[in-house]
Amino acid sequence: MIIKGKPVADAITQTLQADVEALKAKGIAPKLKIVRVGAREDDLAYERGALNRMKTCGILAEVLELPAEIDQETFVKELKAVNDDETVHGILLFRPLPAQLNMDEIKYVIRAEKDVDCISPLNVAKTFDGDKTGFPPCTAQAVMEILHHYEVPVLGSDVAVVGASLVVGKPLVSLLIQEEATVANCHIRTKDTSHYTRQADIVVSAAGCAGLVKGDWVKEGAVIIDVGINVDKDGNLCGDVKFDECEPKASMITPVPGGVGSVTTSVLAKHVVQAAKQLNGLA
Amino acid sequence: MIIKGKPVADAITQTLQADVEALKAKGIAPKLKIVRVGAREDDLAYERGALNRMKTCGILAEVLELPAEIDQETFVKELKAVNDDETVHGILLFRPLPAQLNMDEIKYVIRAEKDVDCISPLNVAKTFDGDKTGFPPCTAQAVMEILHHYEVPVLGSDVAVVGASLVVGKPLVSLLIQEEATVANCHIRTKDTSHYTRQADIVVSAAGCAGLVKGDWVKEGAVIIDVGINVDKDGNLCGDVKFDECEPKASMITPVPGGVGSVTTSVLAKHVVQAAKQLNGLA
Repeated sequence: MIIKGKPVADAITQTLQADVEALKAKGIAPKLKIVRVGAREDDLAYERGALNRMKTCGILAEVLELPAEIDQETFVKELKAVNDDETVHGILLFRPLPAQLNMDEIKYVIRAEKDVDCISPLNVAKTFDGDKTGFPPCTAQAVMEILHHYEVPVLGSDVAVVGASLVVGKPLVSLLIQEEATVANCHIRTKDTSHYTRQADIVVSAAGCAGLVKGDWVKEGAVIIDVGINVDKDGNLCGDVKFDECEPKASMITPVPGGVGSVTTSVLAKHVVQAAKQLNGLA
Repeated sequence: MIIKGKPVADAITQTLQADVEALKAKGIAPKLKIVRVGAREDDLAYERGALNRMKTCGILAEVLELPAEIDQETFVKELKAVNDDETVHGILLFRPLPAQLNMDEIKYVIRAEKDVDCISPLNVAKTFDGDKTGFPPCTAQAVMEILHHYEVPVLGSDVAVVGASLVVGKPLVSLLIQEEATVANCHIRTKDTSHYTRQADIVVSAAGCAGLVKGDWVKEGAVIIDVGINVDKDGNLCGDVKFDECEPKASMITPVPGGVGSVTTSVLAKHVVQAAKQLNGLA
């Protein structure tokens, strides 16, 4: 069974539309501010998707485009202005930032209550602790949304998370442990990743390595979630998983494109609505 | 080879004695304040050990004993006074607190720069992120100190962490992943913990369950770190590991008592000295 992201995103969107209506009836218009430094093509692509999703949900969205060569002091001043803008409930800051900007300072500047993609240490801690008032990174949360939507049992399941990035692999380990999965985290230093993936009821690959997860790495009936977004030798988008080999063995598998990537902006919208509620004492 | 905690604690203590001398020469006398609510026997036992360790290191230490029935408002006022006391560099607050006290508020009250046992969300985030200016929980850090002292390779090693508590298992997973170990986290919901422990170059058990780790759960040559502190049927202290069965197979194994537990107070002392340096702009 190929499990697509669209039904998950649609379900989230539908719930949000009702939430946004209810907020608007109270005089609150949820708004996302995207802060983009420069104009990298992948930031622009994600931005288009995010703006569309916010529109569908009834959420206002604005982009603050800053020059690629902006200095730290000016950037911090701009970010503080967004923090202080009472009409803004969620802030999405594209990463990575240009090298002259110091993320170690910036992560303490962004207001945690508006930080919908887990840059602030307070949201990192809440993600680690399982505090539902926090905002985990959207992509890591998107994986959980897919598991929940398709009613994949997590508690007690063996899960292999392949990849240890700060924005997907590591926070996903925390989210899965909170739901009492047995979690193995594998990465580029792992001696034998297949020892863990073969045991896994759920394999999540977020390594960014095309063809990494082969058919003989997964057991019959496994659920396979492919977070990788790579370009194959023919120039086509592909994930980390050898789809043709794994699909016949999997009980469920996400495609690339059309899988995790199509859920991320709906999680972003969900976080903006949650932030709007929390900032107004409604959640 | 039985690897005891004492040589690790002694090595840390020796380094700290020199650090403390150097700080005192600059007019800075590092000081720990222990905040204890009530008089639980295990808190008192740890307190005695901590006071002795601080004395050996040349660190000042004081205990603030508060009544077991203290209310939240009074407790927060007392804690803020310790936060504001400029002679205090480290604060150790015994957990768990009595039920009438709200840890979800208190963790945001304790000043992160003095929070030497990882109660503040800022230290939770720094532990997760690998920011060395933070203070991981002392027991989790003690495991890392033992591995480092006995020169156990961590990078690329397979590690099974048994137990998922907020003060040992979970932060230890973060600390190990930062050092690029392959980490599997097992716990009470895990279907087959031995699948992970048998693969592991390093087994860390912090489950609090006597006799959990059996001889056939570990491979030849494994390093076994036993964080469990339990009482056996004869009333003697014991760990989680069946020592008699595992010791012949292990390349290194910690005893209980005399293992991890004897390193914890030296990590506490290390954190107080680090806090004193950081608060004075010396680190």
